[in-house]
Amino acid sequence: MSDHLEEQTVDSELVYQGLFLKVRKDRARLPDGSLHGREWVMHPGAAAMLPIADDGRVLMVRQWRYAMHRAYLEIPAGKIDPGETSLQTAKRELLEETGHAAREWAPLLQIHPAIGFSNEVIDIFVARGLERRADAAPDHGELIDVEWATVGELVDALRAGRLPDVKTHIAVMHLQRLVDGDWPWPAFAPA
Amino acid sequence: MSDHLEEQTVDSELVYQGLFLKVRKDRARLPDGSLHGREWVMHPGAAAMLPIADDGRVLMVRQWRYAMHRAYLEIPAGKIDPGETSLQTAKRELLEETGHAAREWAPLLQIHPAIGFSNEVIDIFVARGLERRADAAPDHGELIDVEWATVGELVDALRAGRLPDVKTHIAVMHLQRLVDGDWPWPAFAPA
Repeated sequence: MSDHLEEQTVDSELVYQGLFLKVRKDRARLPDGSLHGREWVMHPGAAAMLPIADDGRVLMVRQWRYAMHRAYLEIPAGKIDPGETSLQTAKRELLEETGHAAREWAPLLQIHPAIGFSNEVIDIFVARGLERRADAAPDHGELIDVEWATVGELVDALRAGRLPDVKTHIAVMHLQRLVDGDWPWPAFAPA
Repeated sequence: MSDHLEEQTVDSELVYQGLFLKVRKDRARLPDGSLHGREWVMHPGAAAMLPIADDGRVLMVRQWRYAMHRAYLEIPAGKIDPGETSLQTAKRELLEETGHAAREWAPLLQIHPAIGFSNEVIDIFVARGLERRADAAPDHGELIDVEWATVGELVDALRAGRLPDVKTHIAVMHLQRLVDGDWPWPAFAPA
């Protein structure tokens, strides 16, 4: 259905390798045979989760996002380390960012945040049965506040324009459909 | 509420300038006084829109996204040119990508797709009263298919995991709330 749109890679060069950002510059052959430059940011992928307590409240984090020069209320998330599955990343990030573990996990959806210039994908999970395990121990150079919010508070914040972070926005819209019974919950498995 | 998280820019350097990607590497001072490197992709911002015909169908585009090595069904969108407002960008992109103009426009919401490594923001609009003006004339080096879809078809595609592009995913979830009467439509103004 989209074969006639396909662009083939002719060659690829790593043109920037920084502290954590990697940029590649490729030449691509378009269906009409013409060659065009294509630059893109290599991303290892990420995992995020909706951590839901037994009383229905959601465990959120607030942190500074340097590129945007502001703080965001977000669902916990983090980049996938080499060798990890996205579920392992989600469990690790929940513990590192909030000090909590969850008794059961379910995949919710995968999103592609920056298809115009990056290969980033984010796997979003739902985590239920939260247990406090440790004081939150953020990574070096990362300050994180932990906050609890009800689904109603999150939907109000979303409608007021206060959840522009896409993974959080999408997770909250799905969560509202789940708790309202409009859409079925995904299948959970023990941690 | 988030002052204790704020990171101050100490200095900033343009470390990569490519065909269209620009990467900056800054030093930031954290609230505890420590210095950390912060890399980010400079983005001019973008505009996207839900173009809705009088019969309720939505005008979509399908295009190849090189960084993801696949094609996506998306709402029309494009980067803001220097001196443009995001509404002007939206009108220009609707015409360039689909050959249509709209009689009235309303702002829907703004999203921040890549807060971990870019300052990109996307303003999403709703456009009603579509009129065909010209054959779609895609930019050089961009092949675009134009497709019509009902809201029901789009929600089905979303729930089946076939709309992972975040701007499209978010726009369709909002559109369903609007057409179901759950949330009020934004205020439209003539084009």
